[in-house]
Formats: sequence, C-alpha cells, structure tokens
Amino acid sequence: MNIHGTHTRTVWLEGHHVCMIDQPLLPHQVETHRCLAWEQTADAIRDMRIRGAGAIGATAGYGMAQAALMARDAYFRGDLQLAADGLRHTRPTAQNLFWAIDQVLSAALGAATPSEGRLAAVAAAEAIADGDARACRLIGQHGAHLIADGTRVATHCNAGWLAFVDWGSALSPIYTAHRAGRKVHVWVDETRPRRQGARLTAFELGQEGVPHQVIPDVALGHLMANGQVDLVIVGADRIAANGDVANKIGTYMVALAAQAHGVPMYVAAPTTTIDPDCPDGSHIPIEHRSPDEVHLVDGWSIDHQSPCTVRTTPQGSPALNPAFDVTPAHLLAGIITEHGIVQATASALAALPRPTA
Amino acid sequence: MNIHGTHTRTVWLEGHHVCMIDQPLLPHQVETHRCLAWEQTADAIRDMRIRGAGAIGATAGYGMAQAALMARDAYFRGDLQLAADGLRHTRPTAQNLFWAIDQVLSAALGAATPSEGRLAAVAAAEAIADGDARACRLIGQHGAHLIADGTRVATHCNAGWLAFVDWGSALSPIYTAHRAGRKVHVWVDETRPRRQGARLTAFELGQEGVPHQVIPDVALGHLMANGQVDLVIVGADRIAANGDVANKIGTYMVALAAQAHGVPMYVAAPTTTIDPDCPDGSHIPIEHRSPDEVHLVDGWSIDHQSPCTVRTTPQGSPALNPAFDVTPAHLLAGIITEHGIVQATASALAALPRPTA
Repeated sequence: MNIHGTHTRTVWLEGHHVCMIDQPLLPHQVETHRCLAWEQTADAIRDMRIRGAGAIGATAGYGMAQAALMARDAYFRGDLQLAADGLRHTRPTAQNLFWAIDQVLSAALGAATPSEGRLAAVAAAEAIADGDARACRLIGQHGAHLIADGTRVATHCNAGWLAFVDWGSALSPIYTAHRAGRKVHVWVDETRPRRQGARLTAFELGQEGVPHQVIPDVALGHLMANGQVDLVIVGADRIAANGDVANKIGTYMVALAAQAHGVPMYVAAPTTTIDPDCPDGSHIPIEHRSPDEVHLVDGWSIDHQSPCTVRTTPQGSPALNPAFDVTPAHLLAGIITEHGIVQATASALAALPRPTA
Repeated sequence: MNIHGTHTRTVWLEGHHVCMIDQPLLPHQVETHRCLAWEQTADAIRDMRIRGAGAIGATAGYGMAQAALMARDAYFRGDLQLAADGLRHTRPTAQNLFWAIDQVLSAALGAATPSEGRLAAVAAAEAIADGDARACRLIGQHGAHLIADGTRVATHCNAGWLAFVDWGSALSPIYTAHRAGRKVHVWVDETRPRRQGARLTAFELGQEGVPHQVIPDVALGHLMANGQVDLVIVGADRIAANGDVANKIGTYMVALAAQAHGVPMYVAAPTTTIDPDCPDGSHIPIEHRSPDEVHLVDGWSIDHQSPCTVRTTPQGSPALNPAFDVTPAHLLAGIITEHGIVQATASALAALPRPTA
C-alpha cells in the first residue's frame, strides 16, 4: 500500500540486511530500520519495531534467510538452529512466527550444500512474504462483499498492511471496497496501551484516503447502542482449531458489545494464523508485556516538537498489561480467509486448505 | 481523605474565594487552584480543573455563594441570576450541578435582605458540601457489606473523593472496607481519553494505601473471563427514574462484560444524582467533548521532567469524543445510595427519600 503516494511493503530483504518501516516512529516520522544480522532482526521483533502476525512471520522468515546468508559453511546447520531458536523466543503468541521459521529452516537444511541452502532460504522467505501479500489481497476481495455503499465499519488495533507485508487482513476488505468506489466510514479505536489504532490504522487509512474517525476504545459500545456501527472486522494473532481467536487485548470486549447489538463481527486472517494443534482458546498462551506500556505514553510533543514519552500514572502505582485476549468462536459471524469467508467452527476451519510456503 | 497524610477536601470556600485541588496537575503535582470570582469558578468547572458529579455540585454551590458575597446590594437578584445562568452553562450532564445552583439561589433569594441572602447562600453551599461528604460516608458504610476479605473490585473512571467533596461514591465502600482491615485489590482502569482512572483513582488509592493495579480499559473483559474480578463498582453522572445510568464513556462496555461473566455491577451515587424528571437513559444528553482529548495525552515528561502534552494520532485524522454513555438498568445488580443499596428500578428509586440541602 501507499506511503506519501509510493507503494511500500512493511519488511524486505536488501542483500543480507532485513529492512522494515520503523513502526514506533509512526505516524510522526517515516523511517527505515535496517537489521545487519539475525540477532538485530530478533530484537526488532521483540522490541515491536515491527508487529502484527503476518509482518512478524515475514520478518522471522527474512531473519532466517539472513542467518543462512551469514552462516559459516562448516557450521551451517548449527548456525541456522541457533537463529531459529533465537527468533522463536521473541514473541510468544503469533502462530505465523513459528510457522515461518520452520518453513525457511527446513528449506535451508533440505538443500544439498550450504550454498544451495542459502538460495533455498531466501526463496522460501520471499515466498512467505509474497504469499502473505497475496493472501491479504484475496482476503480483501472476499471481505469486500460485506461492505455495501455507506457501511460504517469498526476495527480494533492494527490489522492493516503495516501488520502484514501488504494490504493487511481486517483493513484489506475496506481498502478493496474503497478502491471500488464504495463509501466507507471506519471507526478506529485507539487500542491502548500501545495505540496501534490511533497511530497505525489511522495513518494507513489517512494515506489511502479512507474516511475515518479515531475514538477511545471504550466508546464503541456507545456508538453501537446508537446504531452507528454496521460491521466489525478485526485481525487475529492466533485462531484455535475450534474458531476461538486470540487477538489484541480488548477484542473480546468489542465482541461482547457487537453481540449485544446484533452487529456482525468478522475476524480477517490468512490461514497461516490458524493453529490446528491448538484445540481451543484456553490453550493459547497470553503474553504479558511490560507495565511501562500502561504507565507511559509516547508521542510527538506539541511543546518541544520532538518525540516525547510521558508518564500518566502516579509513581508507586503498579500496572498489569495482558497483551491479548481470547474471543470465543460463538461471538463471531465468520472468518475471512484467502479462500473465502467461513464459519468460526472446527469443521469449517478443518475443511480449509492447509497453507504452504 | 488524605493527601500526603493530611486530611483534605476537593473544594472549599476561603472568604469569597473558591479553592480546589487542581486536578489536571494530578498525580504529578498537588496544587490549589483559587477562583477569585464566580466566573473563574465556572471556568474551573468547564475546564475540568474539578470534575465528578458531587464535586461539580459543591463547586457550583460555592460559586453561587461567592456570587452572593460579591453581588451588589441594588442588583442582588440580577447578579445572582446571572451567576446561576453562567454556572449552569458549564457542563451539560451532571444533575448535581443544576440541583446545587437552584438550592443556593433559592436560599439567597428567599432571604429578606441581601446581607441575609449572603449568609443564607454560604450556609446553603456549606450544607451541600457537608451533605455530599456525609452521603458519601454513608455510601461507604452500606457498600462495604459487598466487600468480603480478599475481594477483587474493578472500577471505571474516578468516582473517588476527588469526584466529590470527601470519601467518594464508588471508592467509598473500598476505603471503608480497607480501613476495617479487610484485604481488597482494586483493578483501576485507565479511562481514556482523560485517564481519570490512571491519574486520579490510582493516586487516591495510593495515598490511602489500598492495593491496586492500573490496567488498560480494554483488559477488564479478559480479567473477568479469567475469574479475576469479583465485583464492579462505578459512579454515576446522572441516574434516570427507571434506573438507567449515565456515567463516563466506557461504563456500558464494562457492564456488558460483567453481565457476560456473572460479575455483579453496582452503581454508587448519592440520591442527588437521581433525576426523577428523566424517565430513562434515552433522555440524558450526552456531552461531546473536544477531539483533542483523543488526539493528545498530557503527562509528566520523563525526558524533560516537566508537564508535557504529546500528540498520538496522525495529523489530519479526525476524532470523535463522546464523554458519557448510558448503562441500562437491567445490567446493574443495584445502586448504593446514602440510604442503603436499592435495586435499579423505577419503584425502588421512587421510594427513596428526596435529597434536601
């Protein structure tokens, strides 16, 4: 999708450097973050310079390709295993991360020689990124059927192209409908604590020219009660085999409000997000992140005209910061995948083709 | 209640000055804001230097007393009517505001002379403040019966003593149970956009030594799903005759989550908050405040060690900022008043004694 009118992906390989849009600087500054070795790529995932299930997967894939490109011939397998272990321990929740690492690792180790392994690793990583972009494009085409002219869509967090390689999941149907000339209004909730909605979703929609308004997270119930929301589309970090969905903290409260007001709520996600080995939501580990994300807010100081971090809580008040929650399948109208819209049920998910790199 | 161990009220009269704790500076700085004339008192209410139903009522009452003290003998009635009109146009939602203005106005105008009117106005304003503190103390005593040893209570926004004159409404039962030696843990949700939970409720609880954790607003559903919340107590800005409650935006989503998990949710409010002329929630006007409250976050810069305001949204992204929502009566387990805990029904509310100054 576009930044300042130029088509851009969130992450890409340049030689053996992994490059990405430096997302913590958005929306105030647009800069590229360059990782010179897989350890830096792992740091970038851990520090959330890049985030979102698809983008994390593609980045981890590129990180493995980078490890292959830099691995010593005599220690090719060991170096790659080390990189795989390191990249696996960056974020616990996103299914795509583990999937991408395994794909590139087996491509590299399946080759006859380290030289061929390097080529195979790069090809596998590029295939993951291209596959992600293609899946998101298809999600947009399927999901756009839900968006008639005049539809007011609510979303939570950022499941736009910045969370993937291109197009995004939850926002892809919106972009598709908008480019087809349909009038869409998007309610962008802020998504505390990291404000991915306010910072990233609003930035994406603004760059693409889609009408939107930023709201506090807690305002969505009020808007639904007033009949101002026709549809909810959110992304997913992991989908269990029964259709339960782990996504950004707060998704569950949006789902409860949507149910109370009969507003259909869809999860948009490529099938790489489905974890067939996870029977239901209770088996999805929920990452707890630093309390400082609750205490502190970073933004652009209007006093100093520079990036600034402010503390908003009293010294001595502890905070708790669960990063994800689980929305049970029965609250969802369906799941928008690259293969079409399916019900959030075990049988419907099991019938989907399995993803391949 | 206490600030740095010293008993303090939120608002008080010193001669003809209305003094109040300057709440936008909390929790980072504790300072007194002094209003030299009723126009400044009105500004303080409008600018939310003081906020919360009870505190706004007491402040408006003091503002009217201040107007009486400064009114010219020959224009006593006209000056007071002018002040009443000015104070009425500061905030649209809080029922206590209008009630307090009317109480002091009729006390002042009911006196035989301007001199007696001034005395009557001050006495009426002090009676409102004292009555508010007494009612909150009683709310605490009644509500504390809901809090057994080990109870984990969630609250939204700030309905503590800073929102009243002393004790508070939603927090008063917690203070009462805590002072009685019972173990209480409070989930303090941040309450975007103005973060009254993170700033004020956390500050109050910390000053009083009550164990608590600050959470993002959207985390409460997850905590309820995990069985980590036993009870919800929130305040109210206005209670309709049928028991519908207008309170800080987001209260409704908390109520939906509480219902989904069988967590009892109570509204704590003095009977001055009940508007018998308002048949149900659909008749309560909902204030929309400046979009800048969504765009901007103010706090204490950890870089500059000074107050700082940061922008968190892209330039050009509009925002919407409804300040209150309505929670329907059927989602509430009851209403904690100074007369005891009653059901949120028209008949139970109608049976309560009417408040008098």
